[in-house]
Amino acid sequence: MRFYLDHAATAPLRTEARDAWLAATEVVGNASSTHGAGQDARRLLEESRERAAAVLGCEPIEVVFTSGGTESVNTALHGLWASRREGSDAIVLPDAEHHATMDTVTALGSAGAVVRHVPVDGLARIRVGDFAEALPGAALATALVASNEVGTINDAAALTAAAAAAEVPLHLDSVAAWGHLPLSFRSLRGDAPAGAGLVTLSVAGHKLGAPVGTGALIVARSARLAPLLHGGAQQRGLRAGTQDVAGAAAFATALEVAEAQREHESERLGMLRDRLVSGIRSAVPTAELLGDPLDRLPGNAHLLFPGAVGESLLFLLDMAGIAASTGSACQAGVAEPSHVVMAMGRSENDARSVLRFTLGWTTTDADVDAVIAAIADVVHRASPASRS
Amino acid sequence: MRFYLDHAATAPLRTEARDAWLAATEVVGNASSTHGAGQDARRLLEESRERAAAVLGCEPIEVVFTSGGTESVNTALHGLWASRREGSDAIVLPDAEHHATMDTVTALGSAGAVVRHVPVDGLARIRVGDFAEALPGAALATALVASNEVGTINDAAALTAAAAAAEVPLHLDSVAAWGHLPLSFRSLRGDAPAGAGLVTLSVAGHKLGAPVGTGALIVARSARLAPLLHGGAQQRGLRAGTQDVAGAAAFATALEVAEAQREHESERLGMLRDRLVSGIRSAVPTAELLGDPLDRLPGNAHLLFPGAVGESLLFLLDMAGIAASTGSACQAGVAEPSHVVMAMGRSENDARSVLRFTLGWTTTDADVDAVIAAIADVVHRASPASRS
Repeated sequence: MRFYLDHAATAPLRTEARDAWLAATEVVGNASSTHGAGQDARRLLEESRERAAAVLGCEPIEVVFTSGGTESVNTALHGLWASRREGSDAIVLPDAEHHATMDTVTALGSAGAVVRHVPVDGLARIRVGDFAEALPGAALATALVASNEVGTINDAAALTAAAAAAEVPLHLDSVAAWGHLPLSFRSLRGDAPAGAGLVTLSVAGHKLGAPVGTGALIVARSARLAPLLHGGAQQRGLRAGTQDVAGAAAFATALEVAEAQREHESERLGMLRDRLVSGIRSAVPTAELLGDPLDRLPGNAHLLFPGAVGESLLFLLDMAGIAASTGSACQAGVAEPSHVVMAMGRSENDARSVLRFTLGWTTTDADVDAVIAAIADVVHRASPASRS
Repeated sequence: MRFYLDHAATAPLRTEARDAWLAATEVVGNASSTHGAGQDARRLLEESRERAAAVLGCEPIEVVFTSGGTESVNTALHGLWASRREGSDAIVLPDAEHHATMDTVTALGSAGAVVRHVPVDGLARIRVGDFAEALPGAALATALVASNEVGTINDAAALTAAAAAAEVPLHLDSVAAWGHLPLSFRSLRGDAPAGAGLVTLSVAGHKLGAPVGTGALIVARSARLAPLLHGGAQQRGLRAGTQDVAGAAAFATALEVAEAQREHESERLGMLRDRLVSGIRSAVPTAELLGDPLDRLPGNAHLLFPGAVGESLLFLLDMAGIAASTGSACQAGVAEPSHVVMAMGRSENDARSVLRFTLGWTTTDADVDAVIAAIADVVHRASPASRS
């Protein structure tokens, strides 16, 4: 693949993260073992936890390493649900969440959870008023910091403040956002009461250039959270299983590198993305940028091509050596229209006519040029009506 | 650490597995993406699944990659429980299982599961008659192929046959056994009826020399299993989350290498282990080998040193550069006597006076020599009474 514009599906492994992983595998020993080898592994693990915490803006003990975003989201939602107060059975769920959240909440629905849906607006924004209205008495609430599909950034501070005021525990999914926005668990949590407001925050490694299979759930000290994985006292009893020291070292390294480059990269990617969007709209005047045009992840360009078939767009771009997406890779291959685009009030047809380009650390002008050069022909060929 | 005799806690990463991991990270793309990059990743993933299946003796579609043994065990037990037949609430649980199993079953107990305990004998063997007696009408049963602590090998074929006859779904935990014994999911499952007998089998990567954070749950085609992790259609809908292609490639490679060397290594390690045990018993005549002396993992030497304090033994060995264990690393650091040793009918004092040496692919004569040279003095110093 010559032009990789699908960083939101997975980002190429950063060299620094790979080197940290390799170096860590030289340290033999289970971090739970008490002998010297185990303690060497433990030291490296806890150093990695401290480095991750410094970037994430939390205490080291609040970092629970997981196998990635999906496990983090499942652990948070399942765990908060299982620890809910008696008589409190509602889950506050915005309509444009990632499938990891949607599907976990659906599963909890079979266990008795009552879902309170919160609509999003035409730009995929969660309206804070609607969110706050749904909160009173809920067992838990969840929200995306930024949309993995259309890139819209929510007002995470206002959402957390609303949850704190309502004394409802809130999970924030920052998988798409982390590394692209200035975020801090501590700042977002503020002085929320114990166990309420922002209590858990999910982060995935591979979206940041860490290895697939790494990630974390930040769990506030005061959170009441039942574990999802049982079997050992590792990580405050919140996540059993032999701890992946090399994965933790690589994840912490990727976090640090992403954070060190964040401001510069945000600006660079934002400019590349803007050039991409305006180039596409010049080539295809009917193309429409979906999602918030301003409060938007710098690397996200999500476009509607009215009348075109998304799967065909993808196929034809692929023929031109360009990797893009129609939405979440977790659902790719499944021929369903994007629930996010439909939650924005668009038709099912529109939800099948979108493309997501996501830029990241490897993206250059050449990638943008390739899309701009190819897009008019691709859209023409993927639009049945225009060919008749 | 000069002498590493704690392979059952975690084995050093095999060079071949590391190289496979590195090569796979060069393939950029989410295996669920439909573009060329994604399909390259998908191809490598499915090749790895086929290679793993060939070693594990199952169909590729039956291999569900997980983040390791704990997740595999949790997925199996939770999933079989959630898919149980109406009115069938019992879980058959032998008393010497790994904590991943014990703790998951305890958690299911809070959800209404009724535990039917099956005792083990003085050698930690599950008696097939006791097991079969507990099966009728149970929702599910679980058993270790071989004890992670004392190395005793159960009669997995007889246990699976009993579960098949009782039409109860059985989970086998082969985390400690895989790579050391000739095992095949297909052979063990035999012609059990759909959804009964052996339906799931757990394997961990890092015990075999694959990276930590890799592993699999083998799930029979006919098994009824609800997912633990929700959020995407990956892996038959049984395990959501971006698939770890590099981890899968490394895991499959470690499985192949372990299997290719298994016969030779079993003989080599068995001889080293026997020399270790007889050397220890010559140096410390009161030492007693626990677990089955014959049907035993080749790399396991588990010894009772009457009157000695296990934690002190560990500490003093560590001072001599020797890494061993008092039991499961998942519980190390937790000052509790081994439930396995107590299930064998030993006293709590005995359960605190044990050492486990586990040998693996890096073990040499020098490791054995080091233990034999050090053990008499170590045991003397760790035994309060002998010093008075």
